[in-house]
This record gives sequence, C-alpha cells and structure tokens, in this order.
Amino acid sequence: MRLSAFALATTKETPADAEIVSHQLMLRAGMIRRLAAGLYSWSPLGMRVLRKVENIVRAEMDAIGALEMLMPAIQPAELWRESGRWDAMGPLMLRMTDRAEREYCFGPTHEEVITDYVKRDVRSYKQLPVTYYQIQTKFRDEIRPRFGLMRAREFIMKDAYSFHMDAADLDREYRNMRGAYHAILDRMGLDYRVVAADSGDIGGAKSEEFHVLALSGEDELAVSTDGAYAANIEAAKTVRPEGERAAPTGELKKIETPGVTTIAGLAEHMGVPESATAKSIVVMGESGDPVLLMLRGDHSLNEIKAQDLEGVVSPLTMADEATIRTHFGAGPGSIGPVNTNVTVIADYALANASDMVVGANYDGAHFTHFNWGRDHPEPQFADLRNVNAGDASPTGTGTLEILRGIEVGHVFQLGDKYSRALDLSVLDESGNAVVPEMGCYGFGVSRIVAAAIEQCHDDAGICWPQAIAPFDLVIIPIKADKSAAVREACETLYTELKAAGVDVAYDDRGLRPGPMFADAELIGVPHRIVVSDRGLESGKLEYKGRRDEQSSEIDHDVAAIKAVVLGG
Amino acid sequence: MRLSAFALATTKETPADAEIVSHQLMLRAGMIRRLAAGLYSWSPLGMRVLRKVENIVRAEMDAIGALEMLMPAIQPAELWRESGRWDAMGPLMLRMTDRAEREYCFGPTHEEVITDYVKRDVRSYKQLPVTYYQIQTKFRDEIRPRFGLMRAREFIMKDAYSFHMDAADLDREYRNMRGAYHAILDRMGLDYRVVAADSGDIGGAKSEEFHVLALSGEDELAVSTDGAYAANIEAAKTVRPEGERAAPTGELKKIETPGVTTIAGLAEHMGVPESATAKSIVVMGESGDPVLLMLRGDHSLNEIKAQDLEGVVSPLTMADEATIRTHFGAGPGSIGPVNTNVTVIADYALANASDMVVGANYDGAHFTHFNWGRDHPEPQFADLRNVNAGDASPTGTGTLEILRGIEVGHVFQLGDKYSRALDLSVLDESGNAVVPEMGCYGFGVSRIVAAAIEQCHDDAGICWPQAIAPFDLVIIPIKADKSAAVREACETLYTELKAAGVDVAYDDRGLRPGPMFADAELIGVPHRIVVSDRGLESGKLEYKGRRDEQSSEIDHDVAAIKAVVLGG
Repeated sequence: MRLSAFALATTKETPADAEIVSHQLMLRAGMIRRLAAGLYSWSPLGMRVLRKVENIVRAEMDAIGALEMLMPAIQPAELWRESGRWDAMGPLMLRMTDRAEREYCFGPTHEEVITDYVKRDVRSYKQLPVTYYQIQTKFRDEIRPRFGLMRAREFIMKDAYSFHMDAADLDREYRNMRGAYHAILDRMGLDYRVVAADSGDIGGAKSEEFHVLALSGEDELAVSTDGAYAANIEAAKTVRPEGERAAPTGELKKIETPGVTTIAGLAEHMGVPESATAKSIVVMGESGDPVLLMLRGDHSLNEIKAQDLEGVVSPLTMADEATIRTHFGAGPGSIGPVNTNVTVIADYALANASDMVVGANYDGAHFTHFNWGRDHPEPQFADLRNVNAGDASPTGTGTLEILRGIEVGHVFQLGDKYSRALDLSVLDESGNAVVPEMGCYGFGVSRIVAAAIEQCHDDAGICWPQAIAPFDLVIIPIKADKSAAVREACETLYTELKAAGVDVAYDDRGLRPGPMFADAELIGVPHRIVVSDRGLESGKLEYKGRRDEQSSEIDHDVAAIKAVVLGG
Repeated sequence: MRLSAFALATTKETPADAEIVSHQLMLRAGMIRRLAAGLYSWSPLGMRVLRKVENIVRAEMDAIGALEMLMPAIQPAELWRESGRWDAMGPLMLRMTDRAEREYCFGPTHEEVITDYVKRDVRSYKQLPVTYYQIQTKFRDEIRPRFGLMRAREFIMKDAYSFHMDAADLDREYRNMRGAYHAILDRMGLDYRVVAADSGDIGGAKSEEFHVLALSGEDELAVSTDGAYAANIEAAKTVRPEGERAAPTGELKKIETPGVTTIAGLAEHMGVPESATAKSIVVMGESGDPVLLMLRGDHSLNEIKAQDLEGVVSPLTMADEATIRTHFGAGPGSIGPVNTNVTVIADYALANASDMVVGANYDGAHFTHFNWGRDHPEPQFADLRNVNAGDASPTGTGTLEILRGIEVGHVFQLGDKYSRALDLSVLDESGNAVVPEMGCYGFGVSRIVAAAIEQCHDDAGICWPQAIAPFDLVIIPIKADKSAAVREACETLYTELKAAGVDVAYDDRGLRPGPMFADAELIGVPHRIVVSDRGLESGKLEYKGRRDEQSSEIDHDVAAIKAVVLGG
C-alpha cells in the first residue's frame, strides 16, 4: 500500500475523552472515528487489523470443522420470549418495532436464532454433532459505553454454537473449541490466561474465559502460582480452612462504639486488626425474610456466590434499612448474629474463628469475644467472599496471585437450556426423542484489537504482534524529492517485497523523515527500512524492528529483508 | 469439504410460499432459512457463495484503489435530520430509541455517516480524491418483503463513496467505479446491461444501474438494437417525432359514449385504434390547481417523468374526483382539454397528432376530430410516457427493445447534495473553502446471489457460474460401502485436488447414487466426477459438467481433472 493513497490520519494530541491507552492510540493512529456514544467507524488502517483478526479466527474455526454461516442481526421478539430472555435482558438489548408494529431486537447474541435454525433442519442423531459459527456485528446498549472499542455498543463477535446428542460429546467439542481459542491467541502472540468463569445470564453448567493480560483490564483473575488453578475473581473458589477453632478466651461483652459504622472504624476503635472483626450483610431471602451473611472484616462479599446460595434471592438484593431495623433492632452499622432469629450463613474464613468482634444489634454498640456454638448456634458455612492475593489455591497447591485481564473469549457448556426452551428434539438410534446438549463460544473480534494494544504499546505508540499488524513492513525514503536513486530503489523494493508476500507499506507521502518515523511508530508497523542515498551507496539499508532500541544495517536485498520480516 | 460434515439440508419439495425460482432453489438447496418476514439466515452452503461474491467485489474495489473501511450499522438521527432524510425516508427506515431515549436508525445507506466521517479528518485538497467502501449488512423495512433475498429486509451491500475537488474528478472516479462493476460482473460470468437510471431519493445528477438479465426481473430495461442506448424504463427517453401534423379532416363533434370509461372501451365504441384516442390524466400542480396530462390512448404515463415536470407536485399526486369535477365538470372517464382553463401538458407522441378522440367534459360523452390550435391552444409538449418496444431510440439510431433485469449495482454522481447539507468543506490550493463533489456506488452482494440463480438454472436446480459456485467440483463414489478401492481413490483424489487448488466437495455421506446426483445438480456444482470400480479398472472416470447433456470420460489423473475444472 502506498501511504499517499491510504488516507492515513494520525494526530499528535491525545484525545481528552479517551481514558485508556488503546482508545487513545486507536484515535491518534486514526484507526477508528467516533460516530456517537459507543459507535465507531473503522478507518482503512483499522480495517486492515480487523480483517487480519477475522481471518485468523476464521481459519482456526474452519480447522476444527466449525461451519461458517450468517444469521440476521435483527431478531423477532417471539424467540426471546420462548427462551424467557426478552424480559431478562432488560435495557441492554436494543429493541424496535417494524412498520407492522412487530417487535424485534438487534441481536446481542444468537442462542435463540441458532436453536430455531437447527430445529428447522435437524431431525436425526445422524445430523449431529454440528458446530456453526458466524462473524457478525452485535449491539449491546451499555449503560455507560466507554473505553472506545473495549466497551462499545456496536461490536464484532465471532459466535459459535454446537449441538450434541449427549453431554460427553458436548465436552469433546468444548475442548476442541478451547483448543482453537488457544491457537488463535497463540498465533496473535498475546499473553493470556484461561480462567474458570461464572456463566451469568447465558446459563449453563461450565464456562471458561480467555483473558488477554493487561494492567487496564476490567476483570481480576485469580491464578495459582503453580499454574494449576485460574479463575475469574467472580468465580474463584475459596476453601474451608483446615485445623481447629481456638477456644474462647472471654465472655461475650458489649462495648459502646458510638458513631462507628465501618469495619476500619471499628478495628481502630477496638485496637484490633480488621481480620479480628466479622461484618454482617443482610440480603433478602426467597422466603421473604432477610438472611444474614457474615464475612471476616477484611474480606469482601462475592455477590455472585451469595446469590447462588440456596434460599437467597437472585439477583442479590440488599435488605433496606427498615427491614434491618425490624429484624435486628439496629441500623446496618451495628448489627450482628446475637439475639436474632434470622438465618445466618457465614463465610468459610469464619469457620475456625473465635473471639470475634461483631455488631450488638444496638445502635452504637458491638460485642467482643463472640464465639460460634456458645453465643449463636453453629451457622451454615459457605464460600461467600472474593479471593485475595496470597490465599491458598483451592486445588490445594500453591497460592493465588491476582492478575488483571481483558475478556476476549468465553466458552460455555449450555446443556439443554435453549434446546429445551425452544422445543428442539432429535431422534436417537432407537427412535426416541432426545433434547440436544448445546455449547456456545464467543470471541471478541473487535475487542481483541483494543486488548492487543493494551498489552503491546510504548510511549511512541502501538507495537502490534505481527500477525495482526496493519502492515508487516514500512519503507521510508530519505530526501526522495532530491534523489531519483532513492525513489527508484523504494519503488523496486516495494514491488518486489509485495511479490515476495510481505505486506508492505511505502511512505511516499513526501513528508520529512521525523513525521514518517513518528507515524510508523504510532501505527505500530513491526519492521522499518530506511532508504537513503548513503545507504544505497554502501549497499546496506537501515533496519529497525518496532521494539528495537537501535537501528541496525541490513543488506539491500529482497531475500534478506524478507527473511527478517517473515522469518527464515 | 466432506459433505458428511457439511450440514447439507436439501429438500425435494418446492416451498409453497416461494414465488420465484431463485427463492425456491435457495430454499430447496438449503442455502438460506427464513427467520421472519424478509429475514434469512445463510447456511454454510449459502455462505460459501456469499463469501466468493464478497471476495470478488473486494478484489475489484481494491484494484481501483478504493479503501475498505466499516461504519456502524446503527446511526444517530441527528445526521439524517441534517441531510433532511430523517423524514423523507419514511417507514422504509427501521428506527429505534436507545436506553437514553436518543433516536437512531439501522442504516439503509451511509451517505450521511461517510460525509460526517470525512468531515472529521479531511481539511485540504491534498487529501482528495478519496474513495471508501464497506461490505455491510443493511436494513430496509420493505412494505412487502418477498422473493427471498431479492427483496429481503436485511441484506448485504457493498457501498462506496468518493470525494472530489471538482465535477471532472468525480466523473473520472465514476468511470473507474463503473469499470470495476464491469470487471465484477464479467468475472461472475453473468449476462448484464448497464442502463441510464433515475436517481430517486438518493439525489444527484447522473446515475446508471447494472442489471443482471432475467425473465423474473422486476425492472424493465429499454435497450436499443444497435447497443448505443440503454435505460431503465423509468428513465428511458422518448423523442418528439419529426415531420408535420396532418390537417384536420372534420369539425369537433360530440358523440354520446354512455358507460365508456376506459380507452379500450372508447376505441371499441368508436371503431378506431387506441392510438387514435388521447387519454387525460389529472395531477396536482404546485400552484394548488390541477394540471392535465395528455397521452396517446395506447401509451402509459411515466410517473417519474411527470413529477419532474416544472409546476407538477412531486411525488406525483393524482387529483381526486371532487377536484376533477370542479375543474372539468365531469368524472375521470370523460374529461378532456376542451372548455377548461387547466394547464395542459401533452406527450411528445401527441405533437403531430390530429383528429383525436378526447373526453368531452360531459359524463358519457367524447369529442372526435379534436385538433391542437383549433379546439385548444397549442399545449406544452413534453416526454411523459414509458417507452415501448419498437420505439425509435432517443440516440436517433436503432429501435428499442424491452428486456427484464434485476438491479445489482447503482452508480451515482451525487454532486454536493450531502457535502453541502452536512457542511463539509476543504481548502483548495489557494486557501479557498470548496464543497467537495461526491459519488456513491452500491452493489447488492446478497442480491446478486439470487440474481445469478434467476439467470442460471434448469429443471434440476442451480447452474452456478464457477466463480461463485459453492464448490468447483464434486466427487461422487459408487458403492463406496462395498469397495475399498473406490473409497481410497476418492480420498486420494479429494486430497490431491484440494492441494491443486480445486475447491472440491467429496460426497462421503454414504447415500445411493440417485440422491447424490440430485443434490449435486440442485446445489449447482459446475463439475462432477464419478468414481466406481468399473471406472478405476479402465483408468477412466465419468465426468459431467453441470450444463452438459451427457457425461463423458476423463483420465483418472489429477492434472487432467484440474485442467478441465480450472482451465488449461
């Protein structure tokens, strides 16, 4: 590509409204332009990256035998009503009515449509298993679209769906797909982790996420030091500590704590570490009565774990102050388990605790020396909290560290949630109707472009992994206006390198060297060749890899350059 | 591709609700499946064709230096209000509001968005000309979606937009793009015509359409026998006849014509050909008064020509009966130009007519021997009618024939309609602000799949042009279950032909020959090889081209097969 004909539009200024580096660099490099909140156009530069991502994803899907197809973006409400998600999706789903007043949405995902599609054609076990995928524009009406493509409203996904006669075959294909995701991310050369995940609104039994590691990542990942365990912090498990509970060292004692309503304030007031206190959180139970959740003072509640507890309302609903006063006789800052008949569920970390500081159910008062069994019956213990760095890994070996990641892929074993809701069944070998098991597998095609930048950049701009770089190589001429030899050498290199399979950009815009170097670094071209009269005389050209500290010399020879750019 | 793993889903039954052959065959071949009115999913089979079309279109766009980009499907209402099209597009545009109650549409086209995009980056003449294109899903909420993909609501377009400093440069790029469209259609091997077109709602000065010829085509095309003229019948011009008007042969005479309200009835009643009568059509004028349009009895009004007349309301609005009675004193079947002060505009074909039969402005009466100049002042003559087969070509050579076509491409010179409305300007060499000229160029990526089938099919199914066929070749084994030699020969051929660059399908589904042959013909694979024990013994395999009457023999040799499939 000749850059004079490429409509490159870089800027030096960092846009004021771009909070994260990928958003800033995509705007500065001119890869995207904002149309409206959460809506971006891809420029020709951005499109080259997007197409390379798409082609890698397509190749790896094809390689595992997934079949590419394409479903409509606009989907009728009826299908979503059948699955029960028309209401459940809430305002995240962009809805509309057509000229005949029929209701539709802009599909945020396609479980309903693919199940309906399969239902029309698949009758027999002989037609299964089958895995379909599409690469398509989705829309999610985020309440706060931000971070450019990271949380855009319109975005491009690869979504795949598989159908199976039984759970074992689903598991086989799930592993296949997991392997394809590894292959995609390995080809892109990104540092990533696969973590156990919560299945959320999509439903289903088992799911894992693929995260590109980056400091700006919105997700926290708990990864064990020995590599044997990795989970999104939402799903990361804690274990009930072994060992024995220490015996009480004193009687339950009420202490006045006027104005103390936080754990930090309480610990300071009592002169104990936060870990010696227990916090009480009141949520609504399915019976209509509240449920008291207790955690160690320095731990944080994991809402997903809490709402998954039997008897607890999902999504998790905090009790309001009036309810708390009715059941505890005190306000939220002073409540505890003593003298209340509310069900208590305590986090595993409190199972071996003794002599705890807890709220006294009197405003402005706490108890010390609270002990299970003596001051309150033994409660139900459960995994209620978020893991912390340094926690023991639930696999029993190693400890957990917390990494930040950007979710770019999510693989699910859905089971029969959608096939059952949409009444899909096929005949098995004996002629019995069987409801197929389903898997679904999402990959963020546009998001990974931003994720790659978050992981791969420096002060000068983007440092693309070569597999998804807009160009492999840029040729920069020095004083081309004054040297026919430089112009001719550039033209020849450009033509011959293209013919050799190098994706080459030729900066023929007639700019000074400074702006050409700056643009090449900003847009992140992995390899750079500088052509000058001096270089031509010596037979050596100046070469610099995007990550290199210094430039070096390379023979003025297409085969030599190709070897450096494309390998061996 | 092994067909056992391809989820092929053909049916023998012609779907009852599919009216045209492409819709029937796409459903029967299992290329598409209906989701809702005008919404279709593309199966893996359909997707292979769609991708081949996309790749040809992309290659030809890239070849003329157009830059691929991608704009959002969802567009904010404000931009459409700036161009004045938010109201003008009416119910054809699918509209929605987001969670913040802001208005959007699902873009049916992208003139507004691309103009806004260019406005953000382009400041100087040095950045022009530039041509952008995208391949994208569009939505038009057709009042009556039908004919499958031919008039679907959601469909895939290639839309391109160019920006220029002056009209001459726009014209240069317009010709470029026109050339690319020829290249695309030539590569697809389709029989097509380029015709002059009306620019319609898009606006602008000059436009042409590319039509794939097919008997089922919705458009009529007027094409001169010498090839010098071609136009959509909407835009095809008629010329004012040369020669002199014959002198009147009798006085204006009123004849009772009770119950006669049609031209056919009038001609029969009077014993004259329809061409000796003149019909009167009353439309509303911009002044608020009606305008009388007159045509030869056997001619039909071209509404687009009529609404483009100065003084006539656009879109064309017929006068209601009350208005007609007020101004003519009679009902629509009996009106004419005599004794009314309404403005009269007559078609060119009446310029040399004399002794016409016209309505008398009395219910149930007509005049004979009506003559211009004597019975009514000379009116304005204009081109008001649709051309007919056999008409003289407006270029002065040859006569017109009427063909039927399916519009697959439309190229427009827009001028400054959108750049002016959206306030786009760039500085020229002298530092003066110039409003750029724009072109826009649409190509129906999904529609051409249906159009190709309309042109290329027979009783057994689709006969794809090879460039867009789902596979180049299918290998069909005979009695594979009983012959290891057949299975091995097929596997070897499959592997080697793939390696040789042939897009090959191997029908390993274990069916009887009849269903395999029927499927291969239905889905339209251009080349077929049959592998049987007898063939293997003789060293000759059975070969049949999709259009061949009879099969023939071919050497059992990859090079020989490749030569037939991909050409010498």
